[in-house]
Amino acid sequence: MINNPKVAVFGSGSWATAIIKMLCENLDQVGWYIRNESTIEYIKENQHNPNYLSSAELSVDKLHLSSNINELVDYADILIFAIPSAFLKSELDKITIDISTKIVFSAIKGIVPESGLIVGEHFHKNYNIPFENIGVITGPCHAEEVAMERLSYLTIASQDAKKAKLMSKFLASNYINTKISDDIIGTEYAAMLKNIYAIAAGMAHGLGYGDNFQSVLMSNSIREMKRFIKKVHKMKRNINNSAYLGDLLVTGYSVFSRNRMFGNMIGKGYTVKSAMMEMSMIAEGYYAAKSAYAINEKNKAKTPIIDAVYEVLYLNKNPKQIFKKLTELLD
Amino acid sequence: MINNPKVAVFGSGSWATAIIKMLCENLDQVGWYIRNESTIEYIKENQHNPNYLSSAELSVDKLHLSSNINELVDYADILIFAIPSAFLKSELDKITIDISTKIVFSAIKGIVPESGLIVGEHFHKNYNIPFENIGVITGPCHAEEVAMERLSYLTIASQDAKKAKLMSKFLASNYINTKISDDIIGTEYAAMLKNIYAIAAGMAHGLGYGDNFQSVLMSNSIREMKRFIKKVHKMKRNINNSAYLGDLLVTGYSVFSRNRMFGNMIGKGYTVKSAMMEMSMIAEGYYAAKSAYAINEKNKAKTPIIDAVYEVLYLNKNPKQIFKKLTELLD
Repeated sequence: MINNPKVAVFGSGSWATAIIKMLCENLDQVGWYIRNESTIEYIKENQHNPNYLSSAELSVDKLHLSSNINELVDYADILIFAIPSAFLKSELDKITIDISTKIVFSAIKGIVPESGLIVGEHFHKNYNIPFENIGVITGPCHAEEVAMERLSYLTIASQDAKKAKLMSKFLASNYINTKISDDIIGTEYAAMLKNIYAIAAGMAHGLGYGDNFQSVLMSNSIREMKRFIKKVHKMKRNINNSAYLGDLLVTGYSVFSRNRMFGNMIGKGYTVKSAMMEMSMIAEGYYAAKSAYAINEKNKAKTPIIDAVYEVLYLNKNPKQIFKKLTELLD
Repeated sequence: MINNPKVAVFGSGSWATAIIKMLCENLDQVGWYIRNESTIEYIKENQHNPNYLSSAELSVDKLHLSSNINELVDYADILIFAIPSAFLKSELDKITIDISTKIVFSAIKGIVPESGLIVGEHFHKNYNIPFENIGVITGPCHAEEVAMERLSYLTIASQDAKKAKLMSKFLASNYINTKISDDIIGTEYAAMLKNIYAIAAGMAHGLGYGDNFQSVLMSNSIREMKRFIKKVHKMKRNINNSAYLGDLLVTGYSVFSRNRMFGNMIGKGYTVKSAMMEMSMIAEGYYAAKSAYAINEKNKAKTPIIDAVYEVLYLNKNPKQIFKKLTELLD
């Protein structure tokens, strides 16, 4: 691996902005691809992102900002993608440079809708990036708490421990503890599945279920997640580690989670369409539910919670009846 | 086992009251020992407990109430104890009848301070009750939600599956789902340990740690609980079942938990004594921390969270410094 590799972040949402802040604690220069030129101008002038995580002050002198994705792909040795999965493909389609020799880290929680693949697999299959050059940056981590410099823990996964360690070093600080893992597939699926369980938690809340049920739902969710991931990629992993259980909890118990909020609206009687319009943003678990359901049709793990969310969101089933049925399947 | 066994509940707190409500859904008569005669008079007149869970309407015509513990011990074949562990011994000392042939269920979350034993072991050792006649009723279950008839799940543990099933039948209703288990030791320890972790969660909150850290703390807590229980009683169990992980979550994430509230006050700078006076009730995790620490001195499981809580509560260590050290031990 080359010395002093250059790093660039792609995306301008809360999580991308949080990663920029973390990297600037350790690196002298960080590339940042932002699609919108006016956002770049705003950041240069005001030292914060106008749209997301605006309370995080950014070290603008360290930032190499550009709205030209090819310029930053060319600039960097390590590419960190933090674009919502639903928009990833359209951004990647703009890249005209061969990226097969780059190191790619995914900080995306979800599945690429067009390919039905988790992000690491998408890069591997479509961009010929070997798995040892692919990594995952995962929580449990609300970006908002990074902005406040509240102690948070990240898990950095890569099959190549050296690359995981290097990225860990780039992200660690007095408010970020890091841990490495070799389970890129499992951590990515966990990050995707937790959004479905957060939707389920929101639906249950919207339907009037209480805290007792919520804890049973989470206890069943982690067992279901374990079964699902085991079918997709069998290896020795402790599902109760922070990257899996911790990530599930921080999302499932957060009243700020978009996915939970989306589920809550559905539980309260909104249609999928009206809930999406009302929120004016996309709950990643919506796409994840469809993909996870499709993947599991082949794998046949027992996944009553994913099934329930899928049936409500895509088969237009009545959430009250579906959850009544679900309660009989949980324990 | 005798047909149509008579059941009595001992204790008059929220959880005892919730159990009375659940039993009255299925049984024609239920014995209820309440120490205070005036509470009994109040309940007879007003159909609810004046001090705890007063929103739960009780079927007074089904209740066999008495302030004479021996009368109810004599009356019942199955004794359900729901007295806070700190007061259990002084109540049991009043019993003059041999109870060695009774079936005893514990609905107590804690350790008997005088013997340092969990409740099942205390009855086994001190009252010659064979383990097959001992059972445990455990959550995750806030009594308040039982009063509201919000769907809740209970786990009923006994080495004798028949007795667990019988008690399950007595407690199940359209708002209570039950599950049986043969792990009386593990479920009791889980119910006790979760209160220590809830104190830790409260301390972290009081010290200013956020949701990201809280999820890491819970993820580490369940792994620590698994290690602790494995040393005490090794058997095949899924620590992510509702009786272990669910129970931890419903307490650790509840802002109403006494233990969490107690920890929060300590984290905010109250002394142990002033926090206890301010709350005017007892956080069971306070005693549990001492017992768990003592048990683990022999067993030597890795328990950094229990150790931290113990050091703050009993060695008068500074919570801020202890938690700073703890954060380095978690992952």
